[in-house]
Amino acid sequence: MKIDLRSDTITKPTPEMLHAMMNAEVGDDVYKEDPTVNELERRIAEMFGMDDALFFPSGSMANQAAIKLHTQLGEQLIADKYAHVYNYEGGGVSFNSGVSCKLIDGYRGMITASQVEESINPPDFYHSPLTSLVCIENTTNKGGGACYDFEEIKKIKEVCVAHNLGYHLDGARLWNALVVKQEDPKQYGEIFDTISVCLSKGLGAPVGSVLIGNKDIMEKAIRIRKVLGGGMRQIGYMAAAGLYALDNHINRLSEDHQRAKEIGEVLQKLSFVTHVEPIDTNIIIFNIDSDENEFIAKMAAKNIHFYGMGQGKLRFVTHLDYTKDMHAHFLEVLSSIKLNKAVL
Amino acid sequence: MKIDLRSDTITKPTPEMLHAMMNAEVGDDVYKEDPTVNELERRIAEMFGMDDALFFPSGSMANQAAIKLHTQLGEQLIADKYAHVYNYEGGGVSFNSGVSCKLIDGYRGMITASQVEESINPPDFYHSPLTSLVCIENTTNKGGGACYDFEEIKKIKEVCVAHNLGYHLDGARLWNALVVKQEDPKQYGEIFDTISVCLSKGLGAPVGSVLIGNKDIMEKAIRIRKVLGGGMRQIGYMAAAGLYALDNHINRLSEDHQRAKEIGEVLQKLSFVTHVEPIDTNIIIFNIDSDENEFIAKMAAKNIHFYGMGQGKLRFVTHLDYTKDMHAHFLEVLSSIKLNKAVL
Amino acid sequence: MKIDLRSDTITKPTPEMLHAMMNAEVGDDVYKEDPTVNELERRIAEMFGMDDALFFPSGSMANQAAIKLHTQLGEQLIADKYAHVYNYEGGGVSFNSGVSCKLIDGYRGMITASQVEESINPPDFYHSPLTSLVCIENTTNKGGGACYDFEEIKKIKEVCVAHNLGYHLDGARLWNALVVKQEDPKQYGEIFDTISVCLSKGLGAPVGSVLIGNKDIMEKAIRIRKVLGGGMRQIGYMAAAGLYALDNHINRLSEDHQRAKEIGEVLQKLSFVTHVEPIDTNIIIFNIDSDENEFIAKMAAKNIHFYGMGQGKLRFVTHLDYTKDMHAHFLEVLSSIKLNKAVL
Amino acid sequence: MKIDLRSDTITKPTPEMLHAMMNAEVGDDVYKEDPTVNELERRIAEMFGMDDALFFPSGSMANQAAIKLHTQLGEQLIADKYAHVYNYEGGGVSFNSGVSCKLIDGYRGMITASQVEESINPPDFYHSPLTSLVCIENTTNKGGGACYDFEEIKKIKEVCVAHNLGYHLDGARLWNALVVKQEDPKQYGEIFDTISVCLSKGLGAPVGSVLIGNKDIMEKAIRIRKVLGGGMRQIGYMAAAGLYALDNHINRLSEDHQRAKEIGEVLQKLSFVTHVEPIDTNIIIFNIDSDENEFIAKMAAKNIHFYGMGQGKLRFVTHLDYTKDMHAHFLEVLSSIKLNKAVL
Repeated sequence: MKIDLRSDTITKPTPEMLHAMMNAEVGDDVYKEDPTVNELERRIAEMFGMDDALFFPSGSMANQAAIKLHTQLGEQLIADKYAHVYNYEGGGVSFNSGVSCKLIDGYRGMITASQVEESINPPDFYHSPLTSLVCIENTTNKGGGACYDFEEIKKIKEVCVAHNLGYHLDGARLWNALVVKQEDPKQYGEIFDTISVCLSKGLGAPVGSVLIGNKDIMEKAIRIRKVLGGGMRQIGYMAAAGLYALDNHINRLSEDHQRAKEIGEVLQKLSFVTHVEPIDTNIIIFNIDSDENEFIAKMAAKNIHFYGMGQGKLRFVTHLDYTKDMHAHFLEVLSSIKLNKAVL
Repeated sequence: MKIDLRSDTITKPTPEMLHAMMNAEVGDDVYKEDPTVNELERRIAEMFGMDDALFFPSGSMANQAAIKLHTQLGEQLIADKYAHVYNYEGGGVSFNSGVSCKLIDGYRGMITASQVEESINPPDFYHSPLTSLVCIENTTNKGGGACYDFEEIKKIKEVCVAHNLGYHLDGARLWNALVVKQEDPKQYGEIFDTISVCLSKGLGAPVGSVLIGNKDIMEKAIRIRKVLGGGMRQIGYMAAAGLYALDNHINRLSEDHQRAKEIGEVLQKLSFVTHVEPIDTNIIIFNIDSDENEFIAKMAAKNIHFYGMGQGKLRFVTHLDYTKDMHAHFLEVLSSIKLNKAVL
Repeated sequence: MKIDLRSDTITKPTPEMLHAMMNAEVGDDVYKEDPTVNELERRIAEMFGMDDALFFPSGSMANQAAIKLHTQLGEQLIADKYAHVYNYEGGGVSFNSGVSCKLIDGYRGMITASQVEESINPPDFYHSPLTSLVCIENTTNKGGGACYDFEEIKKIKEVCVAHNLGYHLDGARLWNALVVKQEDPKQYGEIFDTISVCLSKGLGAPVGSVLIGNKDIMEKAIRIRKVLGGGMRQIGYMAAAGLYALDNHINRLSEDHQRAKEIGEVLQKLSFVTHVEPIDTNIIIFNIDSDENEFIAKMAAKNIHFYGMGQGKLRFVTHLDYTKDMHAHFLEVLSSIKLNKAVL
Repeated sequence: MKIDLRSDTITKPTPEMLHAMMNAEVGDDVYKEDPTVNELERRIAEMFGMDDALFFPSGSMANQAAIKLHTQLGEQLIADKYAHVYNYEGGGVSFNSGVSCKLIDGYRGMITASQVEESINPPDFYHSPLTSLVCIENTTNKGGGACYDFEEIKKIKEVCVAHNLGYHLDGARLWNALVVKQEDPKQYGEIFDTISVCLSKGLGAPVGSVLIGNKDIMEKAIRIRKVLGGGMRQIGYMAAAGLYALDNHINRLSEDHQRAKEIGEVLQKLSFVTHVEPIDTNIIIFNIDSDENEFIAKMAAKNIHFYGMGQGKLRFVTHLDYTKDMHAHFLEVLSSIKLNKAVL
């Protein structure tokens, strides 16, 4: 039994999802004639109570398009030091938009309204870039699946309004937060100018992210998608997987969360584990005082795969293709693993 | 019977292609673990006799990535005034690469080696941008599906070598040229530094383009694809359609070409048609002396759809979903259409 | 006697201008505390009846800043194929602003309102870049110092208004047009959104250009100047030269124009000269049927210097440092020069 | 007596410097025909033992050009969180080069080799931008004029070599470090790929910075200067001031340093001063527990001017125009100032 805990991006469609894909009605989405893509966009805009939504080939492109929509060349955005948009999108903030990042040293990838306020460059001091956007991530990826307190999200909004800043949510794993916190997507739609959500992580669709926003901003989004090369033709097969996932794969995220918690409980008891970060959703980050590569190698030898994050930090991610049986087996293996102390 | 001659991008998978898609083995292509994508890339690289190939969500992104790979911020590329990269990729040359275009007034979208030579800025005159790339299109889109004489392609290569310029082929419809000219992809692989080919036009796959090149340049291509947001997860479903098309849909392009020629013959006989451009492949461009919008509207009333190009110029494109029956019906309708003379 | 007709940029300050420079009161212009710069900016804004003006180290930077102020990344501007902003600013339109150029094949560097109208991309067709700016040059540099008919300038304005386009004047040699046409700078201030004028060509100051515009746009100009690196400290010495030139060197441009015309008359009579372009101001462009390099070399041997433009085309430029005596001597030498017919 | 301690950029030429300016021989530097600029460039290249130097209108442009020369669109540079290139150049790193910054939390604006090493993104992990440049500042501006230990500079070089990174020195105030540390410019020329030095801060020239480097890199620098709009015509007047300053104003920087130290000693004794940062050169940074604006206002009322840095932090900068008499007067005023405790 191969167990892959590297990321929730590695899932493959279930037979039911594949059936939905195979029966999708498609058209040329560059001409906006793909009925399945159009339906997905309509449905997600409605879920969030916003005017429009647009399908993208990746979450990176959805985020980068949002950043471009909110900024002008040379401006600055504010984000946590762990932000995906800064760390894992290939330098796209500067490459695509010519924008720089003011990074905040937040808690588990989450920032506060007062930190945002302190990070705004004075608008009349033209030696510094003009601050024009705040990006937050919920849940946080590198922060270990942490969920924001919605009150803090609202306080940040007040700072954005006071200083005329755009407010973008990188919601690659927002579905996990919605399930854990029992929040309504419309709460988010009321606050943010733009939101990106991903269909291919927890939801288990093979490909695709959706950017959501109000009319004035989304009218320009299709132009940005075009220039980045994200206009695709009969992509409705992928949108069909997304629609299926919206109907069938949201609530089941609680299983992933439950399993993550149970893994955390086992980790707490292991002698070589020095710290386990709080587990809010489906990401488990922990530290060991043994050799990280030895741990990875020993588990790989048992066909269990995951990533190290450097300096004794490691990460497991639970997901749709991590089944009940795998979970039982994994907990067993994990409980019995022996590691040597790292020699420093 | 609806007849859609707007573009060859509107085709939908045949049942056999769909079957191939739904039986594809997939994986996370961001980690390069999708076996079907890997197979498609290997197969296309081999066809062209080049080292590597990379799947992209669109031809625009494949071209834009190539341009970025060949240039530095502020440089200039040479292309025909009809070039897709200049006209129809949303300004991406300047947006994504900060590069300007020197446009040549070519013949049906095709340029000559001597025109290229005259268009190179002197490298030591730093007031002008440094010329670093030549892009040609084969077949030409806005040029009416025209095919280059391969000897001219080789002469342009000599100019590129002499002046240290990159040489990129926008081969969105290269398959059509290969079939008409009975050329071997390897001829192209020997000449060009990079080639983009499209799976979703004549070949009839729903989505995807492939960029091909040698090792040194393609190693950087994946980084550019990432920063443009073109990294997708289980996209092997689309690659499977591409593989199916390579096996089954290349030779049949000659049917599209034959039908295009037959349409041209009918057009020649129509009183309101003033000029029909030469028809090399599957694109028919012609001029009328009647009101273009009236023509479009009258045909639309008969459920036949196509685009005007402005100023009395119109275009038909034949493709996989334009069947034998549609062809017979279309020729009949076309032969009998009556238009008023345009009042100028 | 060395005679330099390469460009009007090569002039050196007169003793009186140098005296004005060295007695300038200066301050830190980055803090906007240089009284001489402030006075120059106030004075030029007033001349043109516009709100604000800003000093730049070069005409290229003033133009590039204007283009940035009018456009967003990925948009397109319209200009003549000879435009300085496209040809001689190092590719800055794409480098600094990520903007592409739609070039018009105008007459002597001048374009018409109807050509502009035809060159606008349809705003809802997002495959093409959004057109957002028209740039014209008056007088034209590569067009041979040609002056626009002011009526055409107004017609172009109407097109800009109708299509919501910015309208920028590259007025590097506007002073020459004002003198020849007896126009008032305020006519231009009423029409254009931004105007750049140069202090260091016909006016004879050593360094500097000024960008002029209304409040809303100029408020952002200082930020663009900063990011391009154009903020300088005690630069009032150069502004003082500009102020001196405004008082003393505008009307004398008619001398340069008169001498240019006289040179043209001599050229008309030379057997090896096949064509002399109309001479509106201080630039003379002509063609010869002899070897261009031989001509340049023979004249250089007599300490007379000028540039060839390639393919038998040559250029003379008259200016402040081309004196009455030089003129007499030059006409004499020119009249008597003998060249061999070019062997083709 | 007006005393201005805001910055060392506010100095005006001495009569002797002005005399040197007035007698400068000039030419068109865009054609590289200004003998005074050429001499300044030759002289500075020689001082640093490097191949070439190029005059720029500002230190920002010299730094931004260097960054462009070392990077490609989308890459990342490493610098201290206080770095001028990140904080005070208008966002130019992203605007001009499309490059992002990895900022290090250094000591007084200075970073260590091991911090640099930890900040390099893994080159084969294409999700993160490729690290390609390290920029350090000596002395540090926002770090309070701190001087690097030259051994650390060499260690950072080793990291750069090992990881194939460019190494740029923002030497806006390098002259101050050279004087204090009794270092030879050639030490720096041996280590760095590019160095920018400023003529208009401690050296007292009105305008100008110079970028220095080896042949291969500097050949491209003039092209970058052009596209940023930094090519100027008869700018030799400013270069003459620079040449004068090299001969006459370097050693006298020790006076500025001595006065800065004496100011620091007085500050140490003041009851409202809570902390004085170490004073290495001509910048004094200190904290007060009283209201910063009250302090600034009370001193301004006595015609003494300086800047607050926010949150009770303030800065004095000594310079050429801060004379012996001013110093005596300032120390007296400073010693006797009374402030109320801040009410928090």
